[in-house]
Amino acid sequence: MDSTAFVSKVIEAIREVVGTGQVELHNPSFDGNEWLYLKECLDSNYVSSVGKFVDQFELLLANYTGAKYAVSVVSGTAALQIALKLAGVNSGEEVLLPALTFVATANAISYLGAVPHFVDSEESTLGIDVGKLREYLTANSEQQSGLCINKSTKRVIRALVPMHTFGHPSDLEQLLSITRDFNLVLVEDAAESLGSLYKGQHTGTFGLLGTLSFNGNKTITTGGGGAILTNDEALARRAKHLTTTAKIAHKWEFDHDEIGYNYRMPNINAALGCAQMEKLPEKISLKRELFKRYKEEFKSISGASIFEEPNSCQSNYWLQTLLLEDDNLNLRDSVLEASNKEGIMTRPAWKLMSNLAPYRNSPAMSLEGANSLYRRVINLPSSPDIYTGTR
Amino acid sequence: MDSTAFVSKVIEAIREVVGTGQVELHNPSFDGNEWLYLKECLDSNYVSSVGKFVDQFELLLANYTGAKYAVSVVSGTAALQIALKLAGVNSGEEVLLPALTFVATANAISYLGAVPHFVDSEESTLGIDVGKLREYLTANSEQQSGLCINKSTKRVIRALVPMHTFGHPSDLEQLLSITRDFNLVLVEDAAESLGSLYKGQHTGTFGLLGTLSFNGNKTITTGGGGAILTNDEALARRAKHLTTTAKIAHKWEFDHDEIGYNYRMPNINAALGCAQMEKLPEKISLKRELFKRYKEEFKSISGASIFEEPNSCQSNYWLQTLLLEDDNLNLRDSVLEASNKEGIMTRPAWKLMSNLAPYRNSPAMSLEGANSLYRRVINLPSSPDIYTGTR
Repeated sequence: MDSTAFVSKVIEAIREVVGTGQVELHNPSFDGNEWLYLKECLDSNYVSSVGKFVDQFELLLANYTGAKYAVSVVSGTAALQIALKLAGVNSGEEVLLPALTFVATANAISYLGAVPHFVDSEESTLGIDVGKLREYLTANSEQQSGLCINKSTKRVIRALVPMHTFGHPSDLEQLLSITRDFNLVLVEDAAESLGSLYKGQHTGTFGLLGTLSFNGNKTITTGGGGAILTNDEALARRAKHLTTTAKIAHKWEFDHDEIGYNYRMPNINAALGCAQMEKLPEKISLKRELFKRYKEEFKSISGASIFEEPNSCQSNYWLQTLLLEDDNLNLRDSVLEASNKEGIMTRPAWKLMSNLAPYRNSPAMSLEGANSLYRRVINLPSSPDIYTGTR
Repeated sequence: MDSTAFVSKVIEAIREVVGTGQVELHNPSFDGNEWLYLKECLDSNYVSSVGKFVDQFELLLANYTGAKYAVSVVSGTAALQIALKLAGVNSGEEVLLPALTFVATANAISYLGAVPHFVDSEESTLGIDVGKLREYLTANSEQQSGLCINKSTKRVIRALVPMHTFGHPSDLEQLLSITRDFNLVLVEDAAESLGSLYKGQHTGTFGLLGTLSFNGNKTITTGGGGAILTNDEALARRAKHLTTTAKIAHKWEFDHDEIGYNYRMPNINAALGCAQMEKLPEKISLKRELFKRYKEEFKSISGASIFEEPNSCQSNYWLQTLLLEDDNLNLRDSVLEASNKEGIMTRPAWKLMSNLAPYRNSPAMSLEGANSLYRRVINLPSSPDIYTGTR
């Protein structure tokens, strides 16, 4: 097939699924109790740090994911920064993360004065290549008094942060096994994977801590926001304390026992979150249907395929993903160009962290898998309501 | 007067102003277009990073304060952190700030790896004691190649951050003169003083950068939020870039040229801000009337007085302030105890930063003025609508 024909076929297939007109990559929708709860905020004057919706949202998140505790904050980035701090990441230490991720994963590490250390990804999960990571750590790290030391930089490698790409769970069993064998703390960046299951258990609940995002482009949104999940009561308490300026409870005195953060989620954003949570199962079910539609439409197109959830996983399919075959790598930009010009918003994967100016000198393993995925991924319009024709 | 009689008289005077029932320290009110604008957000699906209210809110802030540019962010703390970064504050340098402030001022400095250096406050402005600061810098700093060096720590002192306490402008003319003479950058923490004027010019617009807060307890609120003000176009551009993950504009590529922050204000919070801005002049006018009522009621009470805006200033009177005379210092906690028990929310000033666990070892000048104010200040209920009887 020549390249023009391929591009046309891809656009035609997308149009079969999403219909005509301008189609965004991922639109939020507010067809539940958003209105009612926002009105309650305004009528009660509770829009900020006081109000019932923050507690309620945290309870909804905990109940839904099965985590014992959820602490809501102002963004997914803030959630990850605090989770890493609570995981014991110190300034000058290294944290392992995929090079194929959104920049927030690396930035959260940097805010603590720690050093991102990039690892490779692979095609079956779009997440960390666990086989390669185990080999790499075996060759390049050593254990000293229960700490994992990077043999070449001599720095402590403290934590491992998988990111569940486009909502698809990484290989959590193998990742946990690696953290046990190499004395690392597992902190999950589940910003994209609220509602995704690995062997029946929610992503974000496997690590010592996990983090979520409710940015406007996510499966549910609070305008902007995030949350920390954990099963450890002491960590949950400390997460709340650190994200509310580390103020010691007192009738009127302002006393703070450490350097805290003003990361509390406002009540008005939590109100939106409560309404969105009520619709989450429906949204995920629509997104899973949307996957099936895309898969069906792309079946007949050779040279590309729709990415399907990993074995033993049930994904939220946050962003639908087209994977070009190796022969068609040169067509990625043509597809992006033509589809966006047509009013169909598509986008590639993020530029690898190791290729960004601020992280060019950070430690990294060889990144063949991530590089290949970067050149082959195209995300397709993924709003849950595209499929129902309610756009 | 014995102490019981004094406490009773104070409570009686407050009740004369605020009426009966439970009275909060500072309630927001939503009697304008809040409802309309929030509904527009939901109906348009724009609650997050896309939407018109963020631009509109920034324009309203710039027009109102007279700053050339305003960049809205997720909190006043985030605003100050970024403003200090843009002011050139580097890790390991010192920043001067009043010991009498909310902890966020010191924390924002710490997030950059810089060291808070505490200075004294005085009674006529409740802000930095400019005479004492000039003497202190003359004795304890020296100029080296255009940098101000702390003679005892050998660190660069990079910036001076006045905070306009309870809305009352600090002595900006003298502060500017000090920054010129000692090669410091002026960054104003105007979190509490939106709408307060020093010689007819808005606080927050005197420094290279100034910052605002729209937390729930402030004169206007966005749920949670803040803004950076500046007259420098390049700094404004960089403020926007740094607070939106330092992403380089591109049709689809995710490229980031430095370590940025996810500090953008969501559209839904900005919508609230737009409606609140329309009511700001009215709110300030009510708060100034409230001051007059308190002043009148406390005229006959000896041993305490209502704090009045500094000379040449027009204050927003964010928090009304009762100042106990030196003879009555031991009565502060009795007044706080009795009034709060009565359902009248009052509070003391913040514990001095130099007395907080995380800042106990930070450099500081002698703090007699701040210590005296800490023991004498009692903030009174200050909601703008108390006075109109619309509670």
